[in-house]
This record gives sequence, structure tokens and C-alpha cells, in this order.
Amino acid sequence: MSKILVFGHRNPDTDAIGAAIGLAHLEAALGSDVEAVALGRPSLETAFALDHFGLDAPRVIETAAPAEVMLVDHNERQQSVADITDVTVLKVIDHHRIANFETAAPLYMRVEPVGCTCTILTRMYAENGVEIPRPEAGIMLSAIISDTLLFNSPTCTDADRAAAAELAAIAGVDVDEYGDALLRAGTALGDEPVSAIIGRDSKSFEMGPKTVRVSQITTVDSAEILDRRDEFLTAMTAEKEAAGYDLYLLLITDVIKADSDLLVVGEPASAVEQALGVTVADGHAFGKGVVSRKKQIVPQLTEVLDV
Amino acid sequence: MSKILVFGHRNPDTDAIGAAIGLAHLEAALGSDVEAVALGRPSLETAFALDHFGLDAPRVIETAAPAEVMLVDHNERQQSVADITDVTVLKVIDHHRIANFETAAPLYMRVEPVGCTCTILTRMYAENGVEIPRPEAGIMLSAIISDTLLFNSPTCTDADRAAAAELAAIAGVDVDEYGDALLRAGTALGDEPVSAIIGRDSKSFEMGPKTVRVSQITTVDSAEILDRRDEFLTAMTAEKEAAGYDLYLLLITDVIKADSDLLVVGEPASAVEQALGVTVADGHAFGKGVVSRKKQIVPQLTEVLDV
Repeated sequence: MSKILVFGHRNPDTDAIGAAIGLAHLEAALGSDVEAVALGRPSLETAFALDHFGLDAPRVIETAAPAEVMLVDHNERQQSVADITDVTVLKVIDHHRIANFETAAPLYMRVEPVGCTCTILTRMYAENGVEIPRPEAGIMLSAIISDTLLFNSPTCTDADRAAAAELAAIAGVDVDEYGDALLRAGTALGDEPVSAIIGRDSKSFEMGPKTVRVSQITTVDSAEILDRRDEFLTAMTAEKEAAGYDLYLLLITDVIKADSDLLVVGEPASAVEQALGVTVADGHAFGKGVVSRKKQIVPQLTEVLDV
Repeated sequence: MSKILVFGHRNPDTDAIGAAIGLAHLEAALGSDVEAVALGRPSLETAFALDHFGLDAPRVIETAAPAEVMLVDHNERQQSVADITDVTVLKVIDHHRIANFETAAPLYMRVEPVGCTCTILTRMYAENGVEIPRPEAGIMLSAIISDTLLFNSPTCTDADRAAAAELAAIAGVDVDEYGDALLRAGTALGDEPVSAIIGRDSKSFEMGPKTVRVSQITTVDSAEILDRRDEFLTAMTAEKEAAGYDLYLLLITDVIKADSDLLVVGEPASAVEQALGVTVADGHAFGKGVVSRKKQIVPQLTEVLDV
């Protein structure tokens, strides 16, 4: 029998990778034969965290069969492994809406409206009386810092703060100091082409009749990115055409100010204006206080488009 | 603001009613403004349990809006309240497969592959440090006995046995003695018409292109029911035609022997033979050891039909 594969969503962020590592260790401690894998390479931010805590990047897989799988930090099939409909899903640990997900048989599913999957995992370790080793605590802490933008996101809950404090004590780091370094590590544009930069953290959603792509990048200097606006809009348009998206949004999130600039291509752009109460001019809008795709973009756009 | 409504599936069984009562008490203890309601009248078995523990049957609702809702013992929309797609689902506590369920925003979802929703709830009371009062313990115990056929179903897990022991101690009943009385209470045909009897515990499933209805009745005297086979087949055919089902299965489950007779109308009956490894003759087959719709019927039929 193949090992059970544990993985997060495509274009993995620190929670997708960290939760896979965290759940795999918990499952192994409870006697399952599991392997944490990933649906892509770590981001700059995730690579910084893995390196900081002496962890290797999980093996990248393209398909999962014939293994059984456990999903973390996602449930929608278009965000999962290519052959997700052919494999048995044993567990889902997630903090997103439920959509485009179904199983033939009962499973274990733990979804909570908290800021980070690793917050749920931290509770599960406690419930099962399993100790969290330092590297796992470190990557899980990194995931919480990343998903909540160091507790600044409206998705952040008291449960996230409590889990982070617990994990920081095990990891032996100062949350603010380490968090600042982690978030800054994720903002470097590097020398990747723009097409790769916008693809780093991208998710697709079916909203009524429309396929909507929402990408997010973080920055400490949004002017640096907005100076290259046309380059980004061109890359987004090319991506939209190639993949057949109707609408493509890019959130450029300032991790210090906790606001986002939005770039928008495709139709209906008016849905973005209506959903978010912003004005789109020349493919750009400003989202005051907008930092969360999951809480401040997806439900509002779904409400407008799902008619 | 309306109270949050907590309810189980249509054609409620003892778990649908018991889990709604159990979750509503837990939520109220934690400070939420909730009401346990139901999508139908209690069965004979459920009425016996409610009466035994001095509980009133929950109010029956047809629609839920404008209230927010918490679902127990189901997630598929065709098993839920008529306006389920118009309301916000805050929580789901369930032990079934996931299908035809989606939300616009993150929620709390706790699904475990155990025999009964009330087993999960028993853990949730412990995790939250809330005591279970005797009536709630009694109806939750009744749900576990009912769903696991007094621990004889293949869906029954150690977690169900442990929860039942804990609840029985609070409820102050002997599990075997009370369980036998409870299951027998549910087997009386009474003086209802056959069309009502087959509708008592019925669920619809989308399996590939087919709509499949699976009803279950329990008995301590299957001969009594099989003597009226033609009457049952006629009622099933009428129901199938009226509601547009492709295939209609009735499980007649002997709660003592832990086997089921199956009555089958509609097409493809060959799918039933293939899925269950039985032979259907004159609309009848015998399912040796078959007692669980969820574990021994639905996944197997889905596998055959979902092509």
C-alpha cells in the first residue's frame, strides 16, 4: 500500500506547506504511514521559514493515485491535485469555504473559520496529546504569521493568536521580530518574470457562470510594483486568455500598511466595483484595509456573480 | 436578529432530531441564541426516546430564512431545508459523505467517519467543558443506539461505544435493555399507509446521471413486511413516478438478525446487483449483513453509477 499523501493547494503558500508538514507529523505520531508533499515549489517566504527551522521542502507531486490523500488548507477540486477525483480523500483540515468538493464515502473533515489551518492543527495536537517538535512548531507558526499578516488580517481570531503564542514558545522565536523578517522575505520580487510573480499565490473560483482568478502578492513597497502596472496588466491578460478566465484580480497587499492595490482585467469589472465598493480606473483600484482574499474578496464577488 | 436554527435532515431519524437537540444545548451553553427545529415529525422510534427522557418534539419548519442555520447529520442540499441555498450555514456536524454542499464563506465543519453524529457531539461537549444534562444525554444515546443498531452496524466505531457508555451513565439507563426497547418501538408498522411507512426514513442521492432514492425501515419480523411485498412495490413505484427518481431501493432491516431484505424498483436494477453482489428477482434481493445505507449501499452504488 502506498503511503498516504498529505498536501495543500496548488501554488502553495506557507500554510499549504506548513499544514502538510504539521498534519503529517501528527498522523505519523498516531501511527499512520504518511508523507507530506506539495503541489508546487515553496515561495520565497516559505523557503525562508523552512530554512530557518531546518526543514526540507516537501517533494512536489503532479498526481496522487494510487495513494489515498489528506488535504490541508483547501477543498475545492480545481485547487487540488490533478487526479483528485480519482483518489480517496481520508481527511480535510481547512479554513476556507466549501465548494466543488465531494466524496463517495464518509471522511474526517475539520473546517473552522479561523485565520490559518495551522491554528486548527495546533488544537488537534493538544486534543491528541501529541507534542509538537520545534521544526514543526516553527513552520506552523510561520503559516499563522503569513495567513494573518502578523495578526493584522480581519481573518485573524483569538484562536490564531493563542496558537501562535503556543507555537512561538516551542519554536523559541520572538513573534514580532521573526514575523517581520518572514513577511519581508516574501515580498522580494526577485528576478522572476512578472508572469511567474503573479502566479505565486493564485487561486481559481467558480462564481455563478464566471471563472475568476484571484492572485495575491505581498510587498513593503507597493509603488515599486505599481510603477510596473502595465507590465503586470499585460501578463494578467495573457494568463486570462491562455487559461480562459473571465475575470482576473491581482491583490498587491502592503504587509505594513495592511491595505491592497487591486489590478483587474477581464469582465465584468463592474462586479469588482459593486462587490468591493471601489472604483476601477485603468485596471486599478485601491482597497482600503483589504488584505484577505478569502474574507474580503471571494464572498463579496461570489454574492454579486452567483445569480 | 432571528435565532440560529439547528436541524437535521428531512424525514428525520433519531440522530437528526437528537443531534439538533444536543448541539442546540451546547451552543446555548456557549452563549449562542439557537433553537433546535426539525424538517419533519419524529418517527415512532424517536417519539419513544423523546417521551422516555421528557423532551418535546422540536418545532417543524418548512423554510429557514432569514435565520442563519447549523446543520446536523446531513450536508447534501436535497436532504436539507427547502431554502438552504438562501441562508448562511454557520456550522455542520455530520458523519456522512460530502456532496452537493457549498458555502460562500468559511464555516465551522466537523465531520467524522463514526457511526452517529451524537458521538461527535459528545466529544465536543467534553472539549468545551460543558456538562450534558440527562434529557440531552438520553436522546443522544438513543441516536447512537439507533444509528448503530445497538452497535451491530459496520459503521459502529470504538468512539461510538465510548460515547454511548458515557451518555448511558448520565442518562441512567441500561444500554442493552433500553436499546432493545427503543429499536422495537421503531419497528411497529402502525396503521399508517404503506406510502407513509416507506417515507419515514428516506434520502435522495445524485449518483452520476441518476437520482436514487434509498428508504430504510427496521423490523423484528421481516416476514410480516415481505408478505405485503406487492403493496410495498406498488407504493415505491408510485413514489418513483411522482418524484422522478430513476431507482428506488427499500431496505427492510431486521434489527435482531442484522440483515436486510431489499426491494427495488426502477432502473438500472442491474446496478444494484453489481454494486451489492446480490440477485434481484421480482423486485427483491437479500442483503446478508447489510444494515447501513451509508456504508453498505451508497458508496457502492455511487461507484457503479457515477461513470
